[in-house]
This record gives sequence, structure tokens and C-alpha cells, in this order.
Amino acid sequence: MTETTVSPFEELSLESLRRRRSVKWRMYDPDVLPLWVAEMDTPLAPPIQSALNDAVALGDTGYAIEGDLPAAFVGFAARRYGWTVDGEAPRLVADVMTGVRIALGACTDVGDRVVISTPVYPPFFEALHALDRVIVSSPLAYDVEAGHSLDLDRLERDFADGASAYLLCHPHNPTGIVFDRAGLAAIADLAERYGVTVIADEIHAPLTDPAIRHVPFASLDHPVAAASFTCVAASKAWNLPGLKAALLVPGSLADTSAFPEELWAGAGLFGVIAAEAAFREGEEWLDLIRAGIVERKRLLSELLADRLPDARYREPAGTYLAWIDMRAYGMDDPATFLAERGRVALYSGTKFGSEGAGFVRLNLATSKSIIIEAVDRMAAVLKS
Amino acid sequence: MTETTVSPFEELSLESLRRRRSVKWRMYDPDVLPLWVAEMDTPLAPPIQSALNDAVALGDTGYAIEGDLPAAFVGFAARRYGWTVDGEAPRLVADVMTGVRIALGACTDVGDRVVISTPVYPPFFEALHALDRVIVSSPLAYDVEAGHSLDLDRLERDFADGASAYLLCHPHNPTGIVFDRAGLAAIADLAERYGVTVIADEIHAPLTDPAIRHVPFASLDHPVAAASFTCVAASKAWNLPGLKAALLVPGSLADTSAFPEELWAGAGLFGVIAAEAAFREGEEWLDLIRAGIVERKRLLSELLADRLPDARYREPAGTYLAWIDMRAYGMDDPATFLAERGRVALYSGTKFGSEGAGFVRLNLATSKSIIIEAVDRMAAVLKS
Repeated sequence: MTETTVSPFEELSLESLRRRRSVKWRMYDPDVLPLWVAEMDTPLAPPIQSALNDAVALGDTGYAIEGDLPAAFVGFAARRYGWTVDGEAPRLVADVMTGVRIALGACTDVGDRVVISTPVYPPFFEALHALDRVIVSSPLAYDVEAGHSLDLDRLERDFADGASAYLLCHPHNPTGIVFDRAGLAAIADLAERYGVTVIADEIHAPLTDPAIRHVPFASLDHPVAAASFTCVAASKAWNLPGLKAALLVPGSLADTSAFPEELWAGAGLFGVIAAEAAFREGEEWLDLIRAGIVERKRLLSELLADRLPDARYREPAGTYLAWIDMRAYGMDDPATFLAERGRVALYSGTKFGSEGAGFVRLNLATSKSIIIEAVDRMAAVLKS
Repeated sequence: MTETTVSPFEELSLESLRRRRSVKWRMYDPDVLPLWVAEMDTPLAPPIQSALNDAVALGDTGYAIEGDLPAAFVGFAARRYGWTVDGEAPRLVADVMTGVRIALGACTDVGDRVVISTPVYPPFFEALHALDRVIVSSPLAYDVEAGHSLDLDRLERDFADGASAYLLCHPHNPTGIVFDRAGLAAIADLAERYGVTVIADEIHAPLTDPAIRHVPFASLDHPVAAASFTCVAASKAWNLPGLKAALLVPGSLADTSAFPEELWAGAGLFGVIAAEAAFREGEEWLDLIRAGIVERKRLLSELLADRLPDARYREPAGTYLAWIDMRAYGMDDPATFLAERGRVALYSGTKFGSEGAGFVRLNLATSKSIIIEAVDRMAAVLKS
């Protein structure tokens, strides 16, 4: 990024953003500043804009088919992660949670125990509940200074207790943990010991800190990795959740015999077209985004230190989501208070499991002025 | 439509259409003429193009929320059908089959008997199978000269046999039957007598012959209508299936207590934006489409009489799908033969239930030259 490049995060005015019809901008009253759900306040990457404009002009709005999307992802995974994916493996699905549900159907049964590392992405709870699996919350270790990390001893106890599968959120939402190769190998060893299948949601992988290279769990040279399932999408890093496309990548040894035939029924054609453009031609823009996230993570550190010194926050390695410990302010659910009084919408930590009480998740994928205004609003009502 | 207006069906060249990435144009080899799945070979209606271009420019690709779509549909239903829909009733879903599945979940249990009027839209079978409901095929009456009609006596026997719900496809796919008010009232009376809940898939409703005004089942003044569920979408009449949006409209007395909370999770934001434009500003274009379908239905009659005189076909009242009785040619599955030998892809009648053996479904939503070429190809191999 040259010094003269305007960050995509600074391209759209608040007035433009308020014209959006997405849930981020329409769920709350117009005087509320929305930093909750994981949408980015950027224009589309130019190659995606161009591909979608062509599709609109051509009326190319019929039923989705995967087309060249798997091949585009295979190329991206090789260049970006050094991960060799069999071109026949990726299956088109509507979103990563559809992929997670299909994978759970393939490797677990009703009543089986499935482990998640809490606090974690709320739809994990909903999917396991809907599928009648037993949710085993395995809390991450948390130290106010050092932040969150995987508690391997606890994970081993939870695996040993008869788990069938582990839903790995990697990079981890909301804490931003990025596991390195050794960390993943430790998980794989435990999974092998206790016969646990790993299902990895790697939707945030393209968004790691520029200094960090994401290691896909399935890329490990390990029998558990070969039997694992990976859910990927362009929808987080290029902001395409409303277009509905993701890929489920079964490992070479994964049992796919229980896959439903109509995997693709929920996927959207514009999602396929946009994701293909993202994986093939979207890396330059992605690197602008990653650089912009670094600046915003740092900005939040400075703002909190200055205006909310009792908030605890570590810059996440993995994504644009800030997981802020607000327990010093004495509320179980500061997000509700901040939305009502401060007119700032954040995600309540309680949605991520009981460990999230007193925490909020703040979305940094926006302009610096919006982040500053949000922290100002939070500070104004928390001090008063 | 003035005489100088070019039909939307004539606007795109075959060369342009072959650039599309949708399933219709990518499932078969490029030398096959595709007239199978229900996509239209038209550009988008101008108001939809404009709304989508705005969304692309704004990067408005975040998560979907229903926004003003229900209100837009309420206005369309009032103007078009004289149907008064409570503005709070419609719920956003990804597609009509998601609506059907949710409605089935709300009014039937595992193992319940659900009646369908066969031959009928293949996903009805798949949904009932996936939900572990018992499929009760209630065949339509069929007379080679008069075509298909509802067999009320048979339907009564099937209701009396302990059915919980009736999946009404209206207008009926693939036969094109459009039920009038008296026909719907007869169904409602039977349903009341035997305690059957009606779930109406009315996705084809905007596409009736211009001489026919569609009567929504739920608009009847009848207790069964008030307890019914209706699935609607702009995706068929404005060709938007790849954008993923539909509405489930429960009747005022319908039991919605079993609705899952995250109904909207599968819907796409571009589907919402496009459907709202369609329902609000798309009627002028829709009337061009309906006029164009009339011409193409007639063209097919002439072509078949001339080149495939043993094929039996009645111009459908309800949609752009031609259901052709090819049994005189002595094949259970003429579609497979025609795709392989004739290089014309049609839907095999066997997908619509056992009554469809020897039939094909041909999609007329294309240019006259493509229809002529398709019939020429069929005639060439069926005569040889």
C-alpha cells in the first residue's frame, strides 16, 4: 500500500452507508452507530464490482452452480496458505454454517457430544441445538494481561469424555486467536487419541494480521487432518454474506457418504460469481484491507487506553473483530446498555457463551472516524 | 405492448446467453440447447437492473433483512390479485421450498401423510422425503384432448385416508392448471371436512395468461384459507432464483408457533432488493413477459402440429412451461434420448412422479428462434 492509497475503509461516507439495506445498517434506529454484525463498511473490491456488473447486464440471475469457484479457491489456497486442495473436493454451499451442518451430519449422530471452544461464534450453539447434538463448552484459558488461549488440558478432558467432533473456529471468533502449526498439531494429536473428527470453520482465514500466515488445519500432515472438514468462503474478507456462497472442503479421508444430494440448493449465483472473482483477482484489495485492519486495531488500543482505561483488550491476530473485556464496568450485558444509552450497537458477549458475560464484540471494519465516535459515545455513558 | 416493442425474450443473443454462469447454461455441453430448468432467457427488468447496480456501487452485500419487501408484496398482491395481506404476516425465506419446509414443520409431524397432485414439481417429493413425511400421490385426471384437471373424488379419498396437509402447486407446475375460485373453494371444503392444512406454492402466479386473474388460495373467504400458508416469490416471473429471496405468508389463523427463529438466515440481500423492485416497479415489464409467453405457447402448438404431430400438448394457462405428452414415441424417458441424440435438454417427465413417464417439460421462456431450433432438433431425431 502506497502512502497515497485511500484505505477502502475510508471510501464510503456515513451518509452513503446509511443508504445500505443490509442488516448491519437497518436493525437499529438511524441514530445508532452500528459496529455489531460482521459486515465491512467498504465498497466492493474492483474485480468483484466488475464481475457483478457484468452479471446484472447479462441478467445472469438463474440457479447457482459451482462452476469455476472450486478451481479459483484451489489456486488461492495454494498461493496464500501453501495448501494443496484436490480440485474435485470443494462443494458449493450457501454459507459456512450450512457447511458445518452438513459436516456434522456426516460425522456425528443425534445425541453425540460436540466440543466448541467458548466463547465462540453464536451460530455454533444454534446449529448443534437444531441438530440435537450435545453441546460441550470447553472454555478457552483467559488471562487479563495475556488474553485468550487454548486450554489443552481442558480440551483433552472434554475429548476424553466421549466427544465425536470438535468444531474448530480458526481464526477464532470472537477472540482473534490464530493457531500456529504446533498448536494445530496438538489439537490433531488429541483428536486422534480420542477418535474426534475436526470440523474447521476458517472463514476469517484471509484476514489474519499481515505478519501471520494462516495454516489450514486440513493442511497438516496428520491422519486427523486428512479426515477433517473445512468450511471456507470469500464472504467475510470481501464482505459478501448477502450473496450466499461458501465451500465445504472434506478431507481426502472424510466420510462424505451422508452428504445430501442437493448441497447447492441454497447457494446464490452472485455469491459464486463474486467469490470466484475474489479468490482469483482479489488479493491486492485484500492486502489493503489487512493493512487497514492493523491500523484500526491499534487505533482502538489507543482510544480505549485514553477514554475507557478499565476496558481490557488485546489486538486480535486473526480478524477485524475486537473482543473487549468490560467487566470492570460492572454489567453482565454492557452491549444492551451501550445500544440504549450510548447509541452504539455492539455484539453482546453473552451471545458467545457464558464466558462472554461482561464482554462486547466491536467490529473494526469501518472508518477511523466511526471508531472514534463509537468509543466517544461509549465513554460518555460509561463515565456518567 | 406496442407493436414496436421488442419482447424481452428476443433481446439476448444465443452467444450472450452462452456466457451465463447459471445452471441452465452450464449443466450441459455447449452444443446442447437448454430448455429444461425454469430460468428465463431475458435481461433483467429495468427497475431491477437499476436497483442491483446501485447495490453493487454501494457495496451493499451484507446480511439480508426483509426491510420493505413485505410491504412491496402487500401492494402487489392488492393491485394484482385483489388480495389483502396483513403487512406483518410475510416472512423472508431463501426460496419457496424453504417456505414449504417451514410450513410443513408448523402443521405436520414426522410420519404424517401429505398429499400432492401428481405429476408435480420434483422438490415436493424431496422435501417430504427429507422431513420424513409420507408422500401421498394423488394423480390429476388426464384426458389426451382435454388435458389435466383436478380429480376431486380421488383427492377426497386421499384426504379421507388421514392426510395432515395438502401441498397445492398453484398455478400447477408442470401442467399449467390455474384453479378458479370455485375450484379452490372445492379444495377448501374438502380440506375442512378432513382437517387438512393447505400449503400453497404460488410462485408462478404472476405469470398466468393475461386473460386470467390469479386467485390466491389464502384470499378465499373460508376458514381453511385463513389457516393456510402461501409461498410467494418474484424469482420465477422476474427470473431471480440465483439471488435467493421468497416470502412465506401464513394465514391469520395459521399456527406459526413452531417457526424457527432464524428464518431469514438463508435469504440473500440482492434477492430482497431485486424482489422489492419487482413487486413495486416491475409490472410493466411483467406484462411484456406475459404477452411474450402467449406468443410462444402458440408457436409451440404450431411447431408440434407441423413437425411432431404425435406429441400431445395443450397451451398452459399458468406459466411458461410446456408439458408435452410424448408417449406416442414409445419411450419412458424421451428427455434423456433427446438430450443425447437431439442435443436439446428438457426436463424428464419421470422427475414429476410416475404419471410423468413419456412426458417432457419444455421451457418456453426464450426466443422464438431457440424454440424453433429445439423442435427441429427433436423432430430430426424422433423421425429418424
